[in-house]
Formats: sequence, C-alpha cells, structure tokens
Amino acid sequence: MQNIVWHNTQVSKLDRASLKQQKPFVIWLTGLSGSGKSTLANALDAYFHEQRYHSYMLDGDNVRHGLNKDLGFDQKSRVENIRRIGEVSKLMVDAGLIVITAFISPYRSDRDMVREMFPADEFIEVYLDAALAVCEQRDPKGLYKKAREGKITDFTGIDSPYEAPLNPEIVLSSDKQDVEQELLTVVHYLEAKKLLAT
Amino acid sequence: MQNIVWHNTQVSKLDRASLKQQKPFVIWLTGLSGSGKSTLANALDAYFHEQRYHSYMLDGDNVRHGLNKDLGFDQKSRVENIRRIGEVSKLMVDAGLIVITAFISPYRSDRDMVREMFPADEFIEVYLDAALAVCEQRDPKGLYKKAREGKITDFTGIDSPYEAPLNPEIVLSSDKQDVEQELLTVVHYLEAKKLLAT
Repeated sequence: MQNIVWHNTQVSKLDRASLKQQKPFVIWLTGLSGSGKSTLANALDAYFHEQRYHSYMLDGDNVRHGLNKDLGFDQKSRVENIRRIGEVSKLMVDAGLIVITAFISPYRSDRDMVREMFPADEFIEVYLDAALAVCEQRDPKGLYKKAREGKITDFTGIDSPYEAPLNPEIVLSSDKQDVEQELLTVVHYLEAKKLLAT
Repeated sequence: MQNIVWHNTQVSKLDRASLKQQKPFVIWLTGLSGSGKSTLANALDAYFHEQRYHSYMLDGDNVRHGLNKDLGFDQKSRVENIRRIGEVSKLMVDAGLIVITAFISPYRSDRDMVREMFPADEFIEVYLDAALAVCEQRDPKGLYKKAREGKITDFTGIDSPYEAPLNPEIVLSSDKQDVEQELLTVVHYLEAKKLLAT
C-alpha cells in the first residue's frame, strides 16, 4: 500500500478527465433501424480503444436487458428509455469517459431533452441519414419484414415516425458511405473541435 | 489523425480494464444515515484517484437528482432505486471502472439482487456498522431530528428497518474508527484480494 495522503476534497470531472488525458463527451448516434448505428458505434469504440482513449458504448444489448428491462415500447416507455440512457451517459461523462450511444431515438424532443443535460461541446448528435428503402433492404435483424407483415407494431419508419435532426453536429449519408468513411468523418470532426488530440 | 486500423471486433471488458491497468469492481457501502458512507466513499475515491486508478462514486447527489429523479421513497421505488444503481454500476464496471456506491440500501434482498448482477469477486459489500444512537447524535443532515418529530416518515432506523448484512466482505465499526482507519482496512482487503496492486 502506498502512503495514504488523503485530502478531504472531492474528485472533479476535470480531475478524472485529466488523469485519463482526454476530454469526455457523448457521441449520440441516431437513425433508422439498419442505418448502421451499431456498426459505426463499434468502429468508433475500437478506434478510441486503439488510440488509448477510454470509451464505452451503450446500445440495446447492454441497456434493454439490464437498466431498462422494466420498460416496454409504448410512447411513455420510449421517452423514459431515452431519458435514462441520457442520464447514464451523463454519469459516465462525469466519470471522464467518452460515451457512444446507438439507439434509433426517433423523437426530436427526446434527443433535445438529452442534449439539455450536457454543456454544448459535450453532446455530439450524429445523424445516420439513410433512405428507408435501403435500410429495409438491409434489414439486418429481419425486423422490417416482421413489421410489414404486421407481426410487430410501432416500428420506426413503418408505422411509427422518425424525426430527423434539424441541426445535428454531423450528418452521414450512411446509405452511400462505408463505415471507414463514416469513422473518418467523425474523427476529423472531433479533432477539429479539439475533443481528440491530432 | 492516426492511421485507422479498424478491426471488426468488439472491445471487451478485459480490453478496457487492461488499458486502464486495473481490475474493475464495485464497492457497495451500506449502513445507517450518519454511519459515514459518504465520507468513506469520498476518501476511497480520492485515494484511488491519487493512485491513478480510475474510479467513480455514485451517491444520492448524482443519482437522485438525475437517473432516479422519477422515484419516490415508497417500498417499490426504493427497490427500483437500488436496482438501477446496481445496473449502472454494472455498466461502469463493464467499462473498466472501479465504482463506489454510497446508499443506505437497508434491505438485504435488494443488496443481494445487486450482488447477483456481478461475478463473486467484483462485488464488495462494506457494512458501516454504527450504533443508531451514535448516528443519531451525529445527524449530519438533521434528518433524525425531523424523523423523531414526525416531519419525515419511513426513515431507516426510526420507523423503517435496517437489515444488516449477514456475510459482507468487510465490516467497519464506523462508530469507533475514523475514516483513515476505515480506508486502510478497505485498501488492505483489496490488496489481499489482488484487486489493487501492492
């Protein structure tokens, strides 16, 4: 054990971030199912890790089966789902981490609610803009097929609206670009904003 | 920008922890109001930070006003409060962090529910064992006084039970020790369990 030199002070967000030698922020990916959010989120997470930044990805896999497993898919639950993801992102950013979220998050008001939780430079909304037809053709989870068959309802793009961001920090034409190009665009943005070292 | 060498693999908990050169775990402090949870949590957090471990503290201040601000203090809300804190701790441990929680968490079943979320060596229950009379005399927030006057109800130790842990990893006689002694005890335990480097 090292000598304990304990000062009765709290460790601040700045302290944690400076220990990590990084600026914390959240990259909020939004777009239709099949627009490539998970793929890009994984690519960003792997890139940050390789560059020795400390990042973490929140997605349906680790949130819907844990923290938000009590929530359904009705309107009220969807709002609460996004609110909690925003609050957890805020705690993680406070802990000094770079957070990447990958959720459809179809409603503008929900995304704006989360944006309000952060200082302006710590919330980066990235819109994966892909035509519905392209997403539906990709249909990686077979969900569009089920939605068209009426086996699932309230599916974004089919019988539930997607409200595109009006002023996102980044727009990616994710039906035309591949993930490496998207990654480059996001990383260049972060470098230009001095959120990553160059 | 560095060369992008992107592999289509996910970053694992082990990857994140090894980048941080630490083992992630949660220190779950439990005990009466006034038993010294916040003081010890802050001391641990500051110690970890000074030793360049990456830790984060969850307490009423950053949880009750954010993630759990929709919850009251009835029985159902108290269970949900602890469940969410457990799930957030799990996400943070998955992100490679050392997490310290400072909540009364009076019910054995709730704490055991959280314990079940983690592998055995990643959940360290620390019981701050202090006589009610001592806590009530300290009364740092003036809450015991209000509870005795009937101005607040369902207050743990007064008109709501506290169920002491049966097999906590660490018991601290927090009405007899000072915070430096408590800190030493916890750090020695973590070193003995190889959770911290010696």
